[in-house]
Amino acid sequence: MDIYPKSLENLIQQFTRLPGIGQKSATRVALYVLKNQKGLAHDLARSLLEVKEKIKFCQVCFNFSDNDLCSICRDNRRANGVICIVEGPGDQLAIEESGSFNGRYHVLHGVLSPLDGIGPEDLKIGELVGRIEKEDIKEVILATNPTTQGETTASYVVDLLSGIGVNISRIALGVPMGSTLRYMDPATLRHSLKGRVLVSS
Amino acid sequence: MDIYPKSLENLIQQFTRLPGIGQKSATRVALYVLKNQKGLAHDLARSLLEVKEKIKFCQVCFNFSDNDLCSICRDNRRANGVICIVEGPGDQLAIEESGSFNGRYHVLHGVLSPLDGIGPEDLKIGELVGRIEKEDIKEVILATNPTTQGETTASYVVDLLSGIGVNISRIALGVPMGSTLRYMDPATLRHSLKGRVLVSS
Repeated sequence: MDIYPKSLENLIQQFTRLPGIGQKSATRVALYVLKNQKGLAHDLARSLLEVKEKIKFCQVCFNFSDNDLCSICRDNRRANGVICIVEGPGDQLAIEESGSFNGRYHVLHGVLSPLDGIGPEDLKIGELVGRIEKEDIKEVILATNPTTQGETTASYVVDLLSGIGVNISRIALGVPMGSTLRYMDPATLRHSLKGRVLVSS
Repeated sequence: MDIYPKSLENLIQQFTRLPGIGQKSATRVALYVLKNQKGLAHDLARSLLEVKEKIKFCQVCFNFSDNDLCSICRDNRRANGVICIVEGPGDQLAIEESGSFNGRYHVLHGVLSPLDGIGPEDLKIGELVGRIEKEDIKEVILATNPTTQGETTASYVVDLLSGIGVNISRIALGVPMGSTLRYMDPATLRHSLKGRVLVSS
């Protein structure tokens, strides 16, 4: 396709490297950027370079941070003694937005995936053991995703931490709010029934 | 929301300025860029700056180009004498991809929209008249979109060019391939019936 000038084609190609952006969206976005008169191209370019320069891992929980410690690890109003383990920063954000957790986090930056050659040494798993002793952790909440790989990773963490004397819990897997049982997959319904909660006796 | 470091929040905000990218997509894209080890951030930043620096309007058809003349206006294998008028570069690309047109283009860069204060002087409409004489154009194909504004713009061009002695045609409006009449809107069906083509007599 040689319809657009080379630098524009190049920008379109760069946009298709982003997740969820195909050829059509990339073209639309690139044309939009080109037409924009409000400095969008420069602002976005500057942000891209700045983020790569400034952002590093929090030394404690491995979330992204522009300091040695992230804002949550620095926050002394948060409860100590409980760590929530998530796969990535996006999962951590989702939990924060739910406003239902006030403890600390540990970001693994991935899941175990033997087929893709991703083992424990590729994740921030080893560092977890040290934290539990050092921070006197009483409970570890496994909040990896309910996928095959997320479950495998959760199981691995359970094995790793058993014997250390810490409570390990898994977030409830079940039917999401606002959904319809009729359209729910069997595995979810199985988890939902198995994990039922007594409401009166 | 102060969960992410400032430079990351800033990148997310920049991404939300792009069309079709909301807060959630922007977050996903920004985190992806941050994790990417293959120079995505730098490549994208460079492309953004380069495109703004290099791309200008073709002096003849006003399509985006990195030269004074775009690749289509430079191409002497293309038919002279027929101009296809489109609203923007994206429309021109769609027609090129259909492979059904071998003439020249004229890109208006917008549509008439009195409510938004967009008049003929804001579009590349005036330049059209000069081209018709200079390039000895026999036919003008109106390929603005079948929206209220696109139709208004097409009508305006018809008025503007009547009397110059050039054939003016409008692309066929009708039922798209692969669609179902049952789910088609009345206006499209009306156009489709009105524009019916005799196949045998």
